[in-house]
Amino acid sequence: VHAQWFVNGQSRGVDPSDRGLAYGDGLFETMAAVDGRIRWLDLHLERLGAGCRQLGIEPVDVGTIRDEIIERCPPHGRWVLKLIVTRGPGARGYRPPVPANPARILGIVPWPEAPRSHYTQGIRMGLCKLRLGRNAHLAGLKHLCRLEQVLAQRELIGSDVEEGLLLDTDGLVVSGTSCNVFAVFDGRLTTPALTHCGVKGVMRRVVLASAGRLCIGATEQDIGAERLPDAEEVFVTNAISGIRPVQAIGERRYAIGAITLKLMSELGYPDDA
Amino acid sequence: VHAQWFVNGQSRGVDPSDRGLAYGDGLFETMAAVDGRIRWLDLHLERLGAGCRQLGIEPVDVGTIRDEIIERCPPHGRWVLKLIVTRGPGARGYRPPVPANPARILGIVPWPEAPRSHYTQGIRMGLCKLRLGRNAHLAGLKHLCRLEQVLAQRELIGSDVEEGLLLDTDGLVVSGTSCNVFAVFDGRLTTPALTHCGVKGVMRRVVLASAGRLCIGATEQDIGAERLPDAEEVFVTNAISGIRPVQAIGERRYAIGAITLKLMSELGYPDDA
Repeated sequence: VHAQWFVNGQSRGVDPSDRGLAYGDGLFETMAAVDGRIRWLDLHLERLGAGCRQLGIEPVDVGTIRDEIIERCPPHGRWVLKLIVTRGPGARGYRPPVPANPARILGIVPWPEAPRSHYTQGIRMGLCKLRLGRNAHLAGLKHLCRLEQVLAQRELIGSDVEEGLLLDTDGLVVSGTSCNVFAVFDGRLTTPALTHCGVKGVMRRVVLASAGRLCIGATEQDIGAERLPDAEEVFVTNAISGIRPVQAIGERRYAIGAITLKLMSELGYPDDA
Repeated sequence: VHAQWFVNGQSRGVDPSDRGLAYGDGLFETMAAVDGRIRWLDLHLERLGAGCRQLGIEPVDVGTIRDEIIERCPPHGRWVLKLIVTRGPGARGYRPPVPANPARILGIVPWPEAPRSHYTQGIRMGLCKLRLGRNAHLAGLKHLCRLEQVLAQRELIGSDVEEGLLLDTDGLVVSGTSCNVFAVFDGRLTTPALTHCGVKGVMRRVVLASAGRLCIGATEQDIGAERLPDAEEVFVTNAISGIRPVQAIGERRYAIGAITLKLMSELGYPDDA
């Protein structure tokens, strides 16, 4: 089972002058496809469109992108659909061409099978040494500049944790290496506000909306790392794995709590992951 | 006059699964070629090799890269040689494949003609609103995650300055949007230490070495933005433009000073730019 890639709709390589490669000047989405159904497709495309507007990557025809995703999505099995939108080819130099000629790159890639125990017993996290740089202009975006996450993942090679915990240079909790983090304090669901770094994940948004529907009090706010030992429950989210309870961060162990289980049940995990 | 690109030595596109595109997982060099001579080639390749080791991008055969650069360099005229080295293709996910299969991408791109007045009268700089995020693990490297610089350049569209001045989130001077910055305080040449962000440019290194040779006292140290008005001279450096005096940062004007002129003369600018 191999990955299949399409660049502007065709089976070809990417222009070597593409600014996504040269400068990380673009955005991506990682979507879960199950038997031809793409979960949260509208939310992914909405975030993509908002990100393109924020970066001034225009014109981007989200309708064409949606049509291509639906057309290329395999009708059977579980797949990850990875979509990259860049500002497209450019002359050398940071200054963006106006108007741009954005490129879309779609990958149909194998589903990462994960043990069911990640859902029934939870995953382990370890604190990464690397601290994320703060930049309010990029915070929240799923842009292509991810070398920090690559280096954080490198720290985990040979360790027995499933996700690294990432703090920013001020010591605030940001996320896992490839997931958002939620913690329950005094019965209240809390997730980092992500005003200075981090990615505002689609599953993070879905969980916040579901909490509202289930009358679970929820807030987005800064969380200092020193507060995590006081959490009653911790779980992580992303669009592929959905919701996974956290059983441990370093030495501190957590039970899988009622709020975590309620949200997992509401959103269909682990069965839909 | 168009750009020419070679991907692993061939006229073809880049693998859409390349991690340079997906995550900015790679490095680049921008070299000045004049009539077949590549200025500072050894220093560029040395920095590239050191960066690859720091990021664990291996194996990279710098000898092959050097041979290709020399072979492809046009024998006449001024050109920019842009070299990108990425960790190569990969499965989805931040974790780097070990060993990697790094990709090299070489562009022969047109020289950006600049007015001679940039050297005789100096360039104007304006303070960018965007502040650079601090990350000691990435500081100094010329890696591919440059969206901060792209956004900083976007701020300058429509302005009359040649370079933006970039501070980090702590208010320290880092660089120009595409150059390193030097300032003279009390007769002493000073450039930001770049321990938390910024690129350690090849021309920055050349200038520091030249200052030593010319018995000009020079230091790398943190420079708070509030100190810049006290500078006696300011100039900027990069491998393409060499040394350009700064005539103004915002409202503060600077004369072109003796240390700037001495270094320009020593290194052959503007005639070699």
